[in-house]
Amino acid sequence: MRRLERPVPLTQIAELLGARLAPGAGDARIARLASLASAGPGDLGFLSDARYAPDAGRSQATAVLVTEALAGCLSGVTLAVLVPDPYVAFAKAARWFETQLGAGRAAPEIHPAATIDPGAKIGAAVAIGAQAVVAAGAEIGDGVTLGPGAVIGAGARIGAGSRIGPHVTLYADCVIGRDAIVHAGTVIGSDGFGFAREGGRWLKIPQLGGVVIGDDVEIGANCTIDRGALEDTVIGDGCKLDNLIQIAHNVRIGAHSALAGCVGVAGSARIGERCMIGGGAGILGHLEICDDVVISAMSLVTRSIRTPGFYTGVFPLLENRAWEKAGAVVRQLPQMRERLRELERLTRETR
Amino acid sequence: MRRLERPVPLTQIAELLGARLAPGAGDARIARLASLASAGPGDLGFLSDARYAPDAGRSQATAVLVTEALAGCLSGVTLAVLVPDPYVAFAKAARWFETQLGAGRAAPEIHPAATIDPGAKIGAAVAIGAQAVVAAGAEIGDGVTLGPGAVIGAGARIGAGSRIGPHVTLYADCVIGRDAIVHAGTVIGSDGFGFAREGGRWLKIPQLGGVVIGDDVEIGANCTIDRGALEDTVIGDGCKLDNLIQIAHNVRIGAHSALAGCVGVAGSARIGERCMIGGGAGILGHLEICDDVVISAMSLVTRSIRTPGFYTGVFPLLENRAWEKAGAVVRQLPQMRERLRELERLTRETR
Amino acid sequence: MRRLERPVPLTQIAELLGARLAPGAGDARIARLASLASAGPGDLGFLSDARYAPDAGRSQATAVLVTEALAGCLSGVTLAVLVPDPYVAFAKAARWFETQLGAGRAAPEIHPAATIDPGAKIGAAVAIGAQAVVAAGAEIGDGVTLGPGAVIGAGARIGAGSRIGPHVTLYADCVIGRDAIVHAGTVIGSDGFGFAREGGRWLKIPQLGGVVIGDDVEIGANCTIDRGALEDTVIGDGCKLDNLIQIAHNVRIGAHSALAGCVGVAGSARIGERCMIGGGAGILGHLEICDDVVISAMSLVTRSIRTPGFYTGVFPLLENRAWEKAGAVVRQLPQMRERLRELERLTRETR
Repeated sequence: MRRLERPVPLTQIAELLGARLAPGAGDARIARLASLASAGPGDLGFLSDARYAPDAGRSQATAVLVTEALAGCLSGVTLAVLVPDPYVAFAKAARWFETQLGAGRAAPEIHPAATIDPGAKIGAAVAIGAQAVVAAGAEIGDGVTLGPGAVIGAGARIGAGSRIGPHVTLYADCVIGRDAIVHAGTVIGSDGFGFAREGGRWLKIPQLGGVVIGDDVEIGANCTIDRGALEDTVIGDGCKLDNLIQIAHNVRIGAHSALAGCVGVAGSARIGERCMIGGGAGILGHLEICDDVVISAMSLVTRSIRTPGFYTGVFPLLENRAWEKAGAVVRQLPQMRERLRELERLTRETR
Repeated sequence: MRRLERPVPLTQIAELLGARLAPGAGDARIARLASLASAGPGDLGFLSDARYAPDAGRSQATAVLVTEALAGCLSGVTLAVLVPDPYVAFAKAARWFETQLGAGRAAPEIHPAATIDPGAKIGAAVAIGAQAVVAAGAEIGDGVTLGPGAVIGAGARIGAGSRIGPHVTLYADCVIGRDAIVHAGTVIGSDGFGFAREGGRWLKIPQLGGVVIGDDVEIGANCTIDRGALEDTVIGDGCKLDNLIQIAHNVRIGAHSALAGCVGVAGSARIGERCMIGGGAGILGHLEICDDVVISAMSLVTRSIRTPGFYTGVFPLLENRAWEKAGAVVRQLPQMRERLRELERLTRETR
Repeated sequence: MRRLERPVPLTQIAELLGARLAPGAGDARIARLASLASAGPGDLGFLSDARYAPDAGRSQATAVLVTEALAGCLSGVTLAVLVPDPYVAFAKAARWFETQLGAGRAAPEIHPAATIDPGAKIGAAVAIGAQAVVAAGAEIGDGVTLGPGAVIGAGARIGAGSRIGPHVTLYADCVIGRDAIVHAGTVIGSDGFGFAREGGRWLKIPQLGGVVIGDDVEIGANCTIDRGALEDTVIGDGCKLDNLIQIAHNVRIGAHSALAGCVGVAGSARIGERCMIGGGAGILGHLEICDDVVISAMSLVTRSIRTPGFYTGVFPLLENRAWEKAGAVVRQLPQMRERLRELERLTRETR
């Protein structure tokens, strides 16, 4: 990140975070946030995991956000900024620095090269980038930002304060709540994958539902969220989706769940609240996953999960030659089990 | 879905579908389609799988599309609309409702904020959205719809009646057939991934082939279909591709195959007709898959398949602690097999 | 590929490649490149792998790029063009044909429907397509091509000679080196997936780093490369990324590595130089992979790799019924190992 042009007193940041400063802070000043490994004079780091204590000991950071328990790990040149949760404190500090740096927010103006249908309803203090397109009947809430080239379909609605990235497509009649963030290239409301087979051919089933995305949701870049067949596809409040995620039609995701990059969720699956789905994982259609479930990266959920917990299904990584051997045995496992049973029988007889 | 402003007589829908109405339909009227679980008065549902018979028994739908065999499952308030294949009948009913609701089709006008090269050939009754770009030598067939921001390269051709979504990129000289649908953000004709290694560096191999997509093909959002290295990448008539699918250069897919979301097909693979590839599955390069093959979600096809059938290769999902144990044993499988052999030898000797 | 309107003497191509022509080339002329399987009179093919020798024997190509060792495999009608590495020679020949066909390069003009901020710095001989958007403070190097609808954020920089495809988004302050190629729809510099959990909710961590992409890098279509949280996400010189790849924040990839389609790399992972990552593979966060590592398609890297080599972790593809049986046994592997141990104990006692 860029340095602040005018470094700020560490005491000011501590106050902002409600943090206690160990004695000796004096008139130390901070110009940026940095990781422990790269931090130097003028930088504020954070130590949120005891595994990184050695980095903290070597760090040249001016100050470090740290719990009282780990404050002893810091080097002599580093001041401790005592907080109960250093990662949360770091998040709050980063939000403050972002504001100082003037990043994130576009000026509230509508670029003359945008195409706004006169039948669209545009709120106050809205920023719309060049080449963006807003169709008739769309409603853009107060303080919304639409990036260059964003396409908002007829009758679609975006709640106040939401930020929509470049080239996002929000198809007709789909809804995004307040204070949501959608990154570039994401498509919301494309047709669900619905076909009936008739005589060896696929007959398209029109997708007549919509998509409803809650408040405070963040969706990464180049995701796809299909509209429902009859009812809506629903993403609950506070959900966080990483990049390149596929959400099929009729899926419902409960509030405050987080999905890492490249996850695919098949049609009509239901995911509970506060779930965490690892990168590249898949969830088959028509399943239910209860609240507070964690799925490992690249695992496939093939059945409903009714007990909160941590689930995994991945073939271990092996040196390729070892994998070839293990893979060959995997194919023979049923026979091996039979041979084991036979040996057990023989051994019982022998004794 | 929205309700029709004027509900229609059930008899009219039955006639449309060639369905037989059980006695008692009288002057029942239908305002929308709905799933059994959510349907109420004025709604038409469908029962296509005996597993959902309990939902049918509880449903408050005015009428349900159902086979004669399952008609007895309906509740007393629900009228049976007898059809041989309820899911196909539902598809046809949905297509009729879509027309009534005025969904799907844009008015045939070319937005003044589109950029059409004078050397492009535009058919009759074409709709082109704002910010779309059509290059010289491109040919857009009669009745085609191009969404806002679609980019059609020089010499590319789109057959009559096709609907191309917002932000789709069709690179130069690529071809889409008639009545195709391509959803937002899909890229057709980007360079295949071809490089020769020379002295530790990668030397780009220009990709001089094209992409040819057949008639009645549907391609989801944010897919990528690369152009061939020398010959064309080919998607056969009637194929259906879901979202976020990667089709590498020189791939050929036979007619009426369906690929679910997040599938990746590597270079020069050939897939037969009427295949179904589950979500997130992968197909290695230079393989052949014969007609009528079904691949499970997230399975990797590592060899050619010459027999129609159903194939799977996925590590089962386990509670994480159980997975850690099972995974550890997987690594030892070759040794376990040796130990089993040794025991068998010893047991034979002992007897 | 299209044929050249005027076929060129084979001797000219041989000279270009520094190749030796077997006797008898006379005045043979070449109009295009083709694969051995489809090549006919007027075509130049290549044989780079002894497995395709039978194709070469049947080929009707006028000439074939081939090593001296395999030249004997050619049919009587085909002339041998002797080169040390036929695939590299093919790459070079394709580059020459591309130039002859006039493919690849847009004319250096700025389309009037592009939106260029007066505060952007545009180099010489730059081509910018319709609806492209270049923000204030962006720097576009000499000879750069921006496709239609490309969006270049404030302060972003693109090095000389790079080609940026349609609808690419380069977010603010991100950097692409010289002679890079980025295909349509790719997003560079979207926010990394960073959140702190506070009371069951996710608190966004602003992503204040950038993305730095080296020289001679090629990135496929619809990829996503997130900006770093504090420092930059870095893609080294000469790297080649296929389509639909996800690169999370703070990742660093060494020079000349190649990633096939649909790969996902989680946050802060480090990949060495000259690595090759197979399609759909995943790499967990905070890992290190040393130089010269090859990962198989759809394998998940769950630990750091410190030894160059070839690694795999994929469940073998089985006929579905066989998979169901093998999968059931996989779950029982820990118990099977116990039973094996018990049998070994009993057998030892018995002897």
